[in-house]
Amino acid sequence: MSQLIPTLKEIWRDFDPGTWCKEINVRSFLRHNYTPYNGNEDFLEDATPATVALWEKVTVLFKQEREKGGVLDMDTKIISSITSHEPGYIDRELETIVGLQTDRPLKRALMPYGGIRMAEKALADNGYEIDPEIKEFFTTYRKTHNAGVFDAYTPEMRACRSSHIITGLPDAYGRGRIIGDYRRVALYGVDRLIEKKIEEKETTKSAMYEEVIRDREELSEQIRALQDLKKMALSYGFDISLPAHDTKEAIQWLYFGYLAAVKEQNGAAMSLGRTSTFLDCYAERDLREGRYTEREIQEMVDHFIMKLRLIKFARTPEYNALFSGDPQWVTESIGGMAVDGRHMVTKMSYRYLHTLKNLGTSPEPNLTVLWSPNLPDAFKRYCAKMSIETSSIQYESDEIMRFFHGDDYAIACCVSSMRLGKEMQFFGARANLAKCLLYAINGGRDEITGKQIGPKYRPITSEYLDFDEVMEHYDAMMEWLAKVYVDTLNIIHYMHDKYCYEKIQMALHDKNVTRWFATGIAGLSVVADSLSAIKYAKVKVIRDETGLAVDYEVEGDFPKYGNDDDRVDELAYDIVHTFMEHIRKNHTYRNSIPTTSILTITSNVVYGQATGSTPDGRKAGVAFAPGANPMHRRDTHGAVASLASIAKLPFKDAQDGISNTFSIIPGALGKEDQLFMGEISVDMDCPAGACVSPTLFEGLDSDETEE
Amino acid sequence: MSQLIPTLKEIWRDFDPGTWCKEINVRSFLRHNYTPYNGNEDFLEDATPATVALWEKVTVLFKQEREKGGVLDMDTKIISSITSHEPGYIDRELETIVGLQTDRPLKRALMPYGGIRMAEKALADNGYEIDPEIKEFFTTYRKTHNAGVFDAYTPEMRACRSSHIITGLPDAYGRGRIIGDYRRVALYGVDRLIEKKIEEKETTKSAMYEEVIRDREELSEQIRALQDLKKMALSYGFDISLPAHDTKEAIQWLYFGYLAAVKEQNGAAMSLGRTSTFLDCYAERDLREGRYTEREIQEMVDHFIMKLRLIKFARTPEYNALFSGDPQWVTESIGGMAVDGRHMVTKMSYRYLHTLKNLGTSPEPNLTVLWSPNLPDAFKRYCAKMSIETSSIQYESDEIMRFFHGDDYAIACCVSSMRLGKEMQFFGARANLAKCLLYAINGGRDEITGKQIGPKYRPITSEYLDFDEVMEHYDAMMEWLAKVYVDTLNIIHYMHDKYCYEKIQMALHDKNVTRWFATGIAGLSVVADSLSAIKYAKVKVIRDETGLAVDYEVEGDFPKYGNDDDRVDELAYDIVHTFMEHIRKNHTYRNSIPTTSILTITSNVVYGQATGSTPDGRKAGVAFAPGANPMHRRDTHGAVASLASIAKLPFKDAQDGISNTFSIIPGALGKEDQLFMGEISVDMDCPAGACVSPTLFEGLDSDETEE
Repeated sequence: MSQLIPTLKEIWRDFDPGTWCKEINVRSFLRHNYTPYNGNEDFLEDATPATVALWEKVTVLFKQEREKGGVLDMDTKIISSITSHEPGYIDRELETIVGLQTDRPLKRALMPYGGIRMAEKALADNGYEIDPEIKEFFTTYRKTHNAGVFDAYTPEMRACRSSHIITGLPDAYGRGRIIGDYRRVALYGVDRLIEKKIEEKETTKSAMYEEVIRDREELSEQIRALQDLKKMALSYGFDISLPAHDTKEAIQWLYFGYLAAVKEQNGAAMSLGRTSTFLDCYAERDLREGRYTEREIQEMVDHFIMKLRLIKFARTPEYNALFSGDPQWVTESIGGMAVDGRHMVTKMSYRYLHTLKNLGTSPEPNLTVLWSPNLPDAFKRYCAKMSIETSSIQYESDEIMRFFHGDDYAIACCVSSMRLGKEMQFFGARANLAKCLLYAINGGRDEITGKQIGPKYRPITSEYLDFDEVMEHYDAMMEWLAKVYVDTLNIIHYMHDKYCYEKIQMALHDKNVTRWFATGIAGLSVVADSLSAIKYAKVKVIRDETGLAVDYEVEGDFPKYGNDDDRVDELAYDIVHTFMEHIRKNHTYRNSIPTTSILTITSNVVYGQATGSTPDGRKAGVAFAPGANPMHRRDTHGAVASLASIAKLPFKDAQDGISNTFSIIPGALGKEDQLFMGEISVDMDCPAGACVSPTLFEGLDSDETEE
Repeated sequence: MSQLIPTLKEIWRDFDPGTWCKEINVRSFLRHNYTPYNGNEDFLEDATPATVALWEKVTVLFKQEREKGGVLDMDTKIISSITSHEPGYIDRELETIVGLQTDRPLKRALMPYGGIRMAEKALADNGYEIDPEIKEFFTTYRKTHNAGVFDAYTPEMRACRSSHIITGLPDAYGRGRIIGDYRRVALYGVDRLIEKKIEEKETTKSAMYEEVIRDREELSEQIRALQDLKKMALSYGFDISLPAHDTKEAIQWLYFGYLAAVKEQNGAAMSLGRTSTFLDCYAERDLREGRYTEREIQEMVDHFIMKLRLIKFARTPEYNALFSGDPQWVTESIGGMAVDGRHMVTKMSYRYLHTLKNLGTSPEPNLTVLWSPNLPDAFKRYCAKMSIETSSIQYESDEIMRFFHGDDYAIACCVSSMRLGKEMQFFGARANLAKCLLYAINGGRDEITGKQIGPKYRPITSEYLDFDEVMEHYDAMMEWLAKVYVDTLNIIHYMHDKYCYEKIQMALHDKNVTRWFATGIAGLSVVADSLSAIKYAKVKVIRDETGLAVDYEVEGDFPKYGNDDDRVDELAYDIVHTFMEHIRKNHTYRNSIPTTSILTITSNVVYGQATGSTPDGRKAGVAFAPGANPMHRRDTHGAVASLASIAKLPFKDAQDGISNTFSIIPGALGKEDQLFMGEISVDMDCPAGACVSPTLFEGLDSDETEE
C-alpha cells in the first residue's frame, strides 16, 4: 500500500527547495520556483473543441438565466455548506476542471447564516419560496448574523443607517473581502494543512481569556472545514489529502479550496487571490517534462476560468441595485513586481488574460493587473491590446501597494490589498462625508427629513457660510460620525464572527493574522468642492421655515478638485486625514487596524440620491462622483491634471484603496497603440491604489457598448 | 377602554409604599409589607376535596411513571421554549394554579441547546427516538453548548476530565444555579419589566467593546423572553402585563415566571427563590379584605407546590447516577431574619411546609429553612415536628449567610446562596483534592491508570512519606490543578453564554449582577486525614513495578478530622484556604468572583470510586465522605465534636457553601421534642452554610424508610 502513496519527493520533484518545504509558506515557494516570462503572446493557444463546446453550453445557460429574469434556478431547502451538495457538472465528459457551487450550473445556493430574511427575500423576489421549516429554524432556533446585529444596534445607529449617513453596511449580507490562500491546498495538500491547524490549536492555550477560547473554537471550526473540503473533493473523485502532482491537479486542488469558500459564504466579495504565477510553476515543470502541451494547459485554464464565471449568489434586487449588477468580485491579481526586483509576469499571466479571447469578454473573474512601469514591455503591450479589445481588465498600482504589503499580496474586491494568508479585512462599507458636512451646518438634523440624527450641536445660523466656523463644526461632527460608524462596525464584525464565521477561508490563513478594520468614505470631491466654495467664493444658505438649511447659492467661482490646484486638493487631503484620525481614536474589534478607502464605483449614485443639496452647488439627489473622482465635468484641465489631484491623496490614510473611474476613448488619444500606452502609464503611476476599467462593472449585457 | 385597565393604585391598594414603587426592588416591598407571624400552626387548613382529587390524579401519574421505568412520556420533536407548547393541565376544572412544562403532566421536554447527544441519549435510554431532522439540525447548523466546549478544551482538560481529577463539569448539561427573581412578575407585571430592560439596553452603549455588545445582545434576548412569557401566560388565559391583583394572581404570575425558566432551561438546579414571605403580603391583604379564606389560600399553595413537584427534565441514567436520583433542586428558601432584627417567618412559611402534610412528603420542592436561633419558638417547634414527621426539610444557617448576602438572598441547588435578582452563579462542579494529593506523590501520574495527567513534576520516591516534602509537592500540584480547573470552567461558561444563555432567568435580574465563579472541592476529609496520618503516624508507600504509588500502609494512630481535634482540623482549614488562594490567582470569566464549596451530597460515592488508595488508609474505590463530613465512623467523639470540626472551616474561603450530611435517629436523642430541638440548634449554629436532611435526596420511593 505505502508504495502507492506518492512521496513529497516525487510530488515536489524538480522544484527548488526552500523554507516552503519546512513551513506553510507559498511566497517562499514562488520566490524559488517561478519563471519570469519576457516574451510576447505568440505562444498562446486557441480554445480547444472541448472548450468551445463547453462554453457553448454555458452560453446557453447564461441566456436562459437572462431570459428568466436573471436567475436560472435556486435552492429553497438545502442549506449550503462545503459538503451539502452532490457533485455537479456542466458536461462531465468535456470538463478538465470540475466542481460547482450546487448540483447544477447556475443554481443558486441557500445561505441563511447572514440573515434569514435576506435569504428568504432573495428567493421570493425571484419567484421561489423558502422551505418553511428552514425559515422557522433560522428564525427561532438558529440565530443569524443579521439578527445578532440588530439586537445590539443602538437607536442612533439605526437612525444613521436610515438617514444614509452610514451606508452599505454588511449587516444583512456576508462581509466578504477575505481571501483564503487557496494555493496552499495545491502546494501542501489538505492533510498537511490540518496538521498545522491542530498544532496551532494545541499551542493556543496560555490562560483561558475569552479571546483564547474564541481562537481555540475557531481553529476547531477551521479543522472541520478542512476535513469537509477533503470530503467534498472526494465526492468529485479526488483525494486532495496530499499536494497536487501536476498542473491539472494544482488548478483542481486550488479551485476546490475556492469552491469550498463560495459554498460556505456569500460574501460581498469572494476574491481568488494571486494564483496565476503560482500555477505557472507547475505548468513550466509539466512543459519541461512533456506531461502536458501548451494547448492542454490553456484548456485547463479556460475551463477553470469558465467555472469562476459560473460563481453566483442568491441576492435581492436592492443588493444588485446598490452594486449595479450582481458582482461576486472573483478578483485575481496578475503580474506585479517581486521585492527582489524581478517582475512576476509569467506565461500563466498571459493565459489568464487570454481567456478573454478564448471565452469572450467578461466582468468576472475580475482580472486585475498589478501595474508597475517595470513590467516587461511585451506584457504591457499585451495588456493594452487586451484592454482595448475587451475593456475587461482592471489595473492597480503595484508600486504603491508593494511598499506596504510586499510581493505576495492580492486584491480583495476592487482595491483592498492584503497579504495572502496573513492579512484579512473586516469590511465596513462607508460613511457619507458630504451628508456629515450638512449635519455640521444643521446641528445634526438631517437635511432631507429634518429629523435629529446627529448630536444636538449648535447649528450654523448665519446667512453666508464662514469657512472657519464651518470647519470647526465639521470637525466635531466628523468626530461624532467616526465613533458611531466604528461602533456600528464593531457590532457587525462581532456578530459575523459569532454567527457567520468564514471557516474555510480562515483555515487557509495563518493563525496570527493582521486584521484590517476597513472603513470607507463617500462624497469626497463634493466635500472638497463645498469647502472650497465656502472658502474662495460666497455661499448663501437657503433655509426652510424650521431653520433647516436645505439649499445653497454659490456666488462667484472657486477652485475645484480635479484640476491639480493645491488650494482645493489640500482640502481633500485634509478631510481624508482628519476623518481617519477621528476613526483611529476609537476602539476597533479584535485589535484590528483601522484603514479607510475612497472607492465607491457604482454606489455613489445611491449615496447621492440620499443626500441633500451641498454648498458646492450640487443639487439634492444628484449622484456623487465615484471614489476619489472629481465631480462630473469639473475637472476642466485635462486628464493629467485630474489624475494629479487624486495622486495627492494620502494613501497612508486610505490604505484600503483609492479608486478613480477613468474613461478614455481610444480615438481621443491617437490611433497608435504606442501613444495609447504612453497615456496609460501616466494613469498607472498615480499613487492611488486602483484605476478601474470603466466597463468592468456593468455586467455581461453591456459588453457591446465598447464594440 | 382605559377605565377597564386596573391602575397601580388599585392593584397595589393597601400596600405600604416605598422605594419599591419607583424602582424594581422586591426587597423594599417586603420590608414595607410583610407581617411577621409569631403564632403556631393551628390556623392551617387541610387539603380541600379539589386538592385531594388533583393529588390523587398526580399520584396515579407518578405511579405510572415509576412503572414505565421512571419516565412517563417524552417529547421527541418539539424543541422546548417558553412558547413551544400548548397549555397543559392536570384537571382544568380543579386547578386553581395552572401551567405545565409541556402539554401534559410529566411529559418531558426536548432541550437540545446544552448538547444534542445528551438530549438524544436521554431519549434513547428511555426508549424514545429523537426526530432525525432535529438531530441533523443541532449537529450541523445549530451548535450546542457541549459542541462549543469540546471545540475549546485542551487535551490536558480532557485528560483531567477522563481521570476524574475534575468531575461533574456542566459541559454537557445546563449549568443551572441561577434563580430568576420570579416575584418581580407578580409585583410589577411583565410590561414594567420589559420597560426596565429596554431602559437598561438603551443606556448600555459607551463604546462598543465586546462586552458591551454582548450585554446589548443579551438584553435584547431578555426582552424577547419577557415578551414570550406574556404570550405563554396568555395561552393559559392570563394577561400578565400588569402586576398581580391578589394572592391567586400573585402565585400564578410568579409561577408563570418560574415555568418559563423550566421550559427554557434544563439546568442542574432550577431553584425557586424566596417566595413564601413575599406571597404572604398578598395573602394578608386578601384575608383583611375578605377576598379569600385561609382555606382557599392553602388550596392555592397546595396546587402551586403540586405543580412544582411535577417539574421534570429529560436526563440520562448516568446523570441520575451521579446525582442519585433525578433532582431538579426546586429550592425554596423559608424564614430567616431581616437585617432590621425582625424575623421573616410568616403564615405563608407555615403554609409551604404544611404541603408536606396536605400532599404528603416529597424531596421536591426542596423546602429549605434559613435557620436562626432568633426565629420564633413556635416556628422552630413546628419545623422540628415536621422534620420528624416528614424528613423533608433542609436547614441552612441564616446567621452566616445573612452577613454576606443581607436578607433577600435564597439558596440555589442545596447550599449556594445568592441575592435574588442581583447575583448569579457560574456553577463549576468540583476538583478532587484527594486525587490531587496522589498526583503530588506520583509526579502527575494517575494512580489508577498510570497515565501522565498532571505536569511531570518530580515524584516522591521515599519509602515513608515525609510531611514537609508531601506538602511542598501538594501545594505545587494544587496550583496546577486550580489553573486547569478554572480555565476549564472559563470555557464552559463562555460557551454556555454563547449557546445556551438563560434568557428569562437573567431577564428577572438587574442588569449589573454579581457573578460568582463557583468552584468546588471533593475529598476534603480524606485529604485532611491523609496529611494527618503522614504527619502524626508513619505512612509507608506501596509502589508497583513502574514506581507508581498504588497503596499505603499506615503505622500507628493519628488524629482524625471530625473529633474537634485542632491538629487535624487545622489541616482541613489549610487545604481549603490554600486551594482557594490558588483558584484566586487565575483569570475568571466575565469578572466573576471565585468561590468554592464543599458540598458533595451523593456524588462523593462516584468520586471515591474513581480514586485510588489514599495515605489515610482508605482503600481504592471506597466512597469519600459527603461534603465536609468526616470520613465514615472516624468521628468517634460524638455529634458535637463532629460538628465542631466542620464549624472551623473558613466560610470566607468556601462561600458557595459547606454541607454536612448529618443523620440523627430521633430515639437516640430522647423522646421529648424539647430535647430534640436542643440538639438541632447546635447543628444549625455551625458556621457551615448548610446542613442537609439525609433523606431529602433519595426520591419518592424511599419516603417509607423513616416511617
